Amino acid sequence: MKPAIVIQTDFSRDSSSVATMYGVCQTVDPEVKVFDLTHSIPPFDIFKASHMLKNTVPFWPEGTLFVSVVDPGVGTDRRGCAALLANGQYVVSPDNGSLSHVLRTPGILAVREIDMAVNRWPHTLTCHIFHGRDVFAYTAIRLASGIIGFEGVGSSYPVDEIVVIPFDPASYREGVFTGIIESSGPYFGLVSSNIPDFMLIENGVRYGDVFQVEISHGPDLVYSGPAPFQKSFGDVKKGQPVLFVGATATIQIALREKNITKIHEIGAGPDWHISLDTGKRPD
Amino acid sequence: MKPAIVIQTDFSRDSSSVATMYGVCQTVDPEVKVFDLTHSIPPFDIFKASHMLKNTVPFWPEGTLFVSVVDPGVGTDRRGCAALLANGQYVVSPDNGSLSHVLRTPGILAVREIDMAVNRWPHTLTCHIFHGRDVFAYTAIRLASGIIGFEGVGSSYPVDEIVVIPFDPASYREGVFTGIIESSGPYFGLVSSNIPDFMLIENGVRYGDVFQVEISHGPDLVYSGPAPFQKSFGDVKKGQPVLFVGATATIQIALREKNITKIHEIGAGPDWHISLDTGKRPD
Amino acid sequence: MKPAIVIQTDFSRDSSSVATMYGVCQTVDPEVKVFDLTHSIPPFDIFKASHMLKNTVPFWPEGTLFVSVVDPGVGTDRRGCAALLANGQYVVSPDNGSLSHVLRTPGILAVREIDMAVNRWPHTLTCHIFHGRDVFAYTAIRLASGIIGFEGVGSSYPVDEIVVIPFDPASYREGVFTGIIESSGPYFGLVSSNIPDFMLIENGVRYGDVFQVEISHGPDLVYSGPAPFQKSFGDVKKGQPVLFVGATATIQIALREKNITKIHEIGAGPDWHISLDTGKRPD
Repeated sequence: MKPAIVIQTDFSRDSSSVATMYGVCQTVDPEVKVFDLTHSIPPFDIFKASHMLKNTVPFWPEGTLFVSVVDPGVGTDRRGCAALLANGQYVVSPDNGSLSHVLRTPGILAVREIDMAVNRWPHTLTCHIFHGRDVFAYTAIRLASGIIGFEGVGSSYPVDEIVVIPFDPASYREGVFTGIIESSGPYFGLVSSNIPDFMLIENGVRYGDVFQVEISHGPDLVYSGPAPFQKSFGDVKKGQPVLFVGATATIQIALREKNITKIHEIGAGPDWHISLDTGKRPD
Repeated sequence: MKPAIVIQTDFSRDSSSVATMYGVCQTVDPEVKVFDLTHSIPPFDIFKASHMLKNTVPFWPEGTLFVSVVDPGVGTDRRGCAALLANGQYVVSPDNGSLSHVLRTPGILAVREIDMAVNRWPHTLTCHIFHGRDVFAYTAIRLASGIIGFEGVGSSYPVDEIVVIPFDPASYREGVFTGIIESSGPYFGLVSSNIPDFMLIENGVRYGDVFQVEISHGPDLVYSGPAPFQKSFGDVKKGQPVLFVGATATIQIALREKNITKIHEIGAGPDWHISLDTGKRPD
Repeated sequence: MKPAIVIQTDFSRDSSSVATMYGVCQTVDPEVKVFDLTHSIPPFDIFKASHMLKNTVPFWPEGTLFVSVVDPGVGTDRRGCAALLANGQYVVSPDNGSLSHVLRTPGILAVREIDMAVNRWPHTLTCHIFHGRDVFAYTAIRLASGIIGFEGVGSSYPVDEIVVIPFDPASYREGVFTGIIESSGPYFGLVSSNIPDFMLIENGVRYGDVFQVEISHGPDLVYSGPAPFQKSFGDVKKGQPVLFVGATATIQIALREKNITKIHEIGAGPDWHISLDTGKRPD
């Protein structure tokens, strides 16, 4: 069976854009299955695109091709690329920071610049604003279909040339876990850090332990207060804060059945920091 | 051909949550087709989830597996279950009221509690907040794939232990049809009752008959006025009220090309009642 | 392989409506693949439906069946039809103006009125408000499955009886290109005209040429100013206007990373005109 393609964009599903990407895929090879990751990334939010890929890739089989199109630089000289991940999947995307998270986890083994002389939908040569369809979806379906192999994408270039958005890794020091806010969902109000669950486990944290939580945006403290680490929302009263392991194995904070994101206007990105203080200090 | 899976949630399609549910299904068995019912159920609105299932199941083939995830109690001791419907379909869902409508129509033949020692995605054991992916989608894809049969879900329990949201059935008495408002769509402004079309037909209603309509929320009268029963919107003038048989064979009221839901702030649920008075009284 | 079905509606994906259309298709023939074009057409916006079809059909294979359901006249005597396009695709739709664009490009070879005595989902005969599911999706899946051929749709009628929304074609005269605004996207703020790329190319326009742009709504001038014709957004500074070849080979105007649609309140439709003045006049 041919590998699947999973697409994310900042196009919304309101226009015909995504449907034309599907059409290109169906025209080239109707046997390949294509899925939506999401098309609701805020316009031009490359950090969000990068984070969404990290969240999603662990749940798909080896060989899956992810197409990521948040591409404010379309038509300029930013590279278009296909990256081979350490887990055997691929990401086809503008090389504009969208690979920042998967470069760390699961890691990128190799990257190739898409040769648009070959991997370019041939029917729209006057259009230079929609590489999502004409280059990225087209390259992905050619890979998925077996028309080209990875080397058929174009020339390889060093992995350390991949454009990255810098952000602080999670860390633990002297009783305090620190990291950044990677997403702050307006819908359910789940605030997700990049602090991995195993970091708490390795440092002896147990369900019921209470932390002093601080969230800051640049120099400004935005939220501060105690919260217990629990299995789920149901372990605290409605409206109360709770820390728990989120859907993608990082620590999240939320208010049970309330929206911490809206109430405290919490955003996400490299300049949003979170700390969880155990209160324990080295002797 | 393997049966299809149809998923509804209150997750929206804005995050990666739904895409990871699809990923789990594709990882277990890429041959099984998975579809979206909707992911726009308002957060925690179990009544809506229940109603959506009733609306949708009649249009899908026998054997279809519906996954319903509106799950404010995730991680608590509410049961997760798979229910065998009287039409040969299945619903995999938290047992939290989401089965209230299908319990009445088409009816539930048997229900089993999901044994999470077996039917649990094995790669996310530290996460207790996303049974939609880790338990419900995973159990559904194992059923659809034939990895387990219905008995492989877990222990059966009595159908009369299923959690239900009480709501009044439709009735006819002394010239008046009564029921509840089951949905009030903000998009088109269609207000749907639970009064079935056949109840009107059996009681001699004909196209063109005019009813006195009353809609109340608890003790408060919210809407009152005459409306004819017609085949469709086109049978009244723009802006005028009309009663008709809706998409799922219950009586609806709408204003032609206007939004009765917004204009009169009409909601839905067990405490929203509607009456259609024929004006006829027994001798 | 059986042809695919691609569906667009003004139903949104928030209700169960679209999922029941999919269910009908899966019930009739689960081998046929069904895709979403969009379900976010504003309610009753037939012009938009018409334009979306034109945008999308070039990117799908011959034989594809498009189902278009923006149908304010459902239940009245407007015709339901299936049209055979000049490119070998089909559109199944109410004949209410939704075919206006594809009638021009790629053109319609033949049209047949759907015979509801045959092509009508047999389980919902009391419902007259949802031909999208009961007639259009049902007819499309019967065509895609091979249960009926094109002649099985119903009686043919003259192509020149198809209902059209009149709108001005693009033209070039004495140094000025004129056309209408076909869409004005609220999301990215791309304003799309119906002026085709080849009209500029044939008249000697080159990248870097600057036009005086005017956009008017009926008699009112809404936007006026100079803008260069470039390959892409990236060729101008942030916030600056730029003309370029859009995703479907017509001329678009946008502000780089700003939203011209919102800032200047630009709409779309037959009464929205755009002119691009080269400043050149015949000797």
